Amino acid sequence: MSRTSPQPAGKDAEAAAGRRGFSRRSLFTAAGTGGLGLAAGVLAGSSLAGAREAQAASDAVAFHGAHQAGITTPAQDRMHMAAFDVTTTDRDELTAMLREWTAAIEAMAAGREIGAGGATAGDYEAPPEDTGEASDLSASHLTVTVGFGRTLFEQEGRDRFGLAARRPAALIELPHFPGDALEESRSGGDIIVQACADDPQVAVHAVRNLARIAFGRARVRWSQIGFGRTSSTSSAQTTPRNLFGFKDGTANLKSEDAEALAGHVWVSGAQGGEAWMNGGSYLVARRIRMHIETWDRTSLREQEAVIGRTKREGSPLSGGKEFTAPDFALQGSDGPLVPADSHVALAHPSRNGGVQMLRRGFNYTDGSDSLGRLDAGLFFIAFVSDPRTHYVPMQATMARRDALAEYLRHTGSGLFAVPPGVPEGGYLGQGLFEA
Amino acid sequence: MSRTSPQPAGKDAEAAAGRRGFSRRSLFTAAGTGGLGLAAGVLAGSSLAGAREAQAASDAVAFHGAHQAGITTPAQDRMHMAAFDVTTTDRDELTAMLREWTAAIEAMAAGREIGAGGATAGDYEAPPEDTGEASDLSASHLTVTVGFGRTLFEQEGRDRFGLAARRPAALIELPHFPGDALEESRSGGDIIVQACADDPQVAVHAVRNLARIAFGRARVRWSQIGFGRTSSTSSAQTTPRNLFGFKDGTANLKSEDAEALAGHVWVSGAQGGEAWMNGGSYLVARRIRMHIETWDRTSLREQEAVIGRTKREGSPLSGGKEFTAPDFALQGSDGPLVPADSHVALAHPSRNGGVQMLRRGFNYTDGSDSLGRLDAGLFFIAFVSDPRTHYVPMQATMARRDALAEYLRHTGSGLFAVPPGVPEGGYLGQGLFEA
Repeated sequence: MSRTSPQPAGKDAEAAAGRRGFSRRSLFTAAGTGGLGLAAGVLAGSSLAGAREAQAASDAVAFHGAHQAGITTPAQDRMHMAAFDVTTTDRDELTAMLREWTAAIEAMAAGREIGAGGATAGDYEAPPEDTGEASDLSASHLTVTVGFGRTLFEQEGRDRFGLAARRPAALIELPHFPGDALEESRSGGDIIVQACADDPQVAVHAVRNLARIAFGRARVRWSQIGFGRTSSTSSAQTTPRNLFGFKDGTANLKSEDAEALAGHVWVSGAQGGEAWMNGGSYLVARRIRMHIETWDRTSLREQEAVIGRTKREGSPLSGGKEFTAPDFALQGSDGPLVPADSHVALAHPSRNGGVQMLRRGFNYTDGSDSLGRLDAGLFFIAFVSDPRTHYVPMQATMARRDALAEYLRHTGSGLFAVPPGVPEGGYLGQGLFEA
Repeated sequence: MSRTSPQPAGKDAEAAAGRRGFSRRSLFTAAGTGGLGLAAGVLAGSSLAGAREAQAASDAVAFHGAHQAGITTPAQDRMHMAAFDVTTTDRDELTAMLREWTAAIEAMAAGREIGAGGATAGDYEAPPEDTGEASDLSASHLTVTVGFGRTLFEQEGRDRFGLAARRPAALIELPHFPGDALEESRSGGDIIVQACADDPQVAVHAVRNLARIAFGRARVRWSQIGFGRTSSTSSAQTTPRNLFGFKDGTANLKSEDAEALAGHVWVSGAQGGEAWMNGGSYLVARRIRMHIETWDRTSLREQEAVIGRTKREGSPLSGGKEFTAPDFALQGSDGPLVPADSHVALAHPSRNGGVQMLRRGFNYTDGSDSLGRLDAGLFFIAFVSDPRTHYVPMQATMARRDALAEYLRHTGSGLFAVPPGVPEGGYLGQGLFEA
């Protein structure tokens, strides 16, 4: 946001200063240390400016890079995800939107308001360029990750934007899995936007402003709030609990394991796919409703047998601590200590040809249904290098055999090709449109 | 949760210790300082126990008191509210549920798991007494506030529980206001539960466990997640922003103002109502959907004129800073600087016979509708001593005249009598049932 925008006519000097052109974070800092008077001083060029920038950076995640942020970034606690359908039929309008999104995401990730005008400093007779509800909040580790759905490339046989030939082979139509109860209004979409942040208002602000920018070119198809992360993506994070009360994601890929990421998360030229996807990944989204009322009436013994881990510590039932490798061969008095149909047994890499996923899901609660049951569960998100090898086989096995499956219902689904990161001056998906 | 519950047969000593009987908080503390090994040491009676209790207390809100917590408690950032319909017809079953709720709320507010067994230390062949998803989380300033709806006292002419004669006159049926578009499935309810916390998972855990305890006696009618507070209830808090991007609740009643609370929030014997409500309050809940797409296309000038305050600072348009009193008489070139139909003008106590409310609302986002518009807005919550004088007249005026009304639609509504606080050994609503 420009700090040199012209000063609009204001009702008094302070109000005018308030409209002038702070960065989002600079206003926040000023408010915390004495209010607008100080902020005006900062604007006038005081030496606090440097300190302010440093503070802004302290909880900002870098936007530019080889990969998009929000994949190996340590999982933030809150999420707002939205799938968009493109409404324009004009390729140039679509790329113009992606350029505008790129600029907006770059600003928001840095903790700044969007545009030269921001929330209040633009043309006083025009709508503000930023909607303002995050103006007092810091960057909050916001990451916004964008991907493309299969329908963007081709829909009902139509090559909508001249992209059909560039659709990666890995961007398949996911098969129907046993137990799927997918709702059309919670599934699919031409473009996915995953906004994650420490503060939910910052994530909601990001999605809302991208939807505003998209006006006339794309519109929200579905969106989902996730209130608590269910996976760690860094070994520095503790393992959170899902709504079954169990630790979730103990065996998740960690961002420190570069070799595993290269093999299981990032698309590389060695795979022989579309070059524009190199450095990208595939995002699998599944809205998994949990039958928590049924679960809550299940004995502790049954719950632990279904998961294959203890509830308190998250240790494998074969013994040890949370991060002890499960011993599937260890026998108890009536079979393996870790039951063969337990979740940990069926999901384990050793049972899935060694494949691993980077899981990045969230707990959700969306009110209650007509029977008074909470509509709650896990919004599953995983990043994989190829869903054909890294998601479909495992899910097919789990849907058929997992003891947990009877407590779950998949109500939404999406698969998206997440392009690589954006270099300075570039825009999201540029490699797809400008080959 | 008892620390002397018998040790269950475990797969190994550590796993058994994990199931033994930590307080919720003690486990959290242990996890933060070296894991289960240390926790087992703590259990064995180390001197860390005292420090642990102190830490547990540091973010716990006292449950017992003259008033229920969650009213003047400094507004937490996250909320889960649920309205229940009572399904039993047996008064004793209803009071038994309220006793069980009281014990559960007391435990959760202190950061403990529910029941003697907690999440993992009870009968291994029975469902756990606590669902466990908050087991690693602190008390997080959890407050759970309970109130009774009009239908609990009498429904379709039936005196369901022998309470009809005790229904307070102030527990009216709210009138229809212009612009109301209330949905039955988001309105009313026999009992309301407001759970607020710093961590949304703690608030969700509270509602989910009360719903579990209610099984067979009451069930959830509707529930609502609020992701960000929109009011300050303490002068130590900064004023947050609503989804219109404006500071909200600048003129809110503050918990430090005991005289105003006595006059506007707490029910007292001087009002001549039902004695069981003395020390209680009335909770007004309104789900207010905001037409944010329309708002976002409105000029900054129009937005500020509609609100009557500047967007950046929240100052009245008559000048000054956020907390400067608005001057409704001050004229500009075309009328009052604070427009007469602005939100601040119509909501101001000076225009409403001096009445004030303690507002405690939350921003919400519940996905998107079939037109791709975000279903987002303000979940309005206010506590007042009498809704007939402190809510209905103001809302009637605002619904008719407020310039903001065209951007709003009320889609849910509820009014509940919130009984006073619970003394040691008592239970929620005891004064109503045992007069």
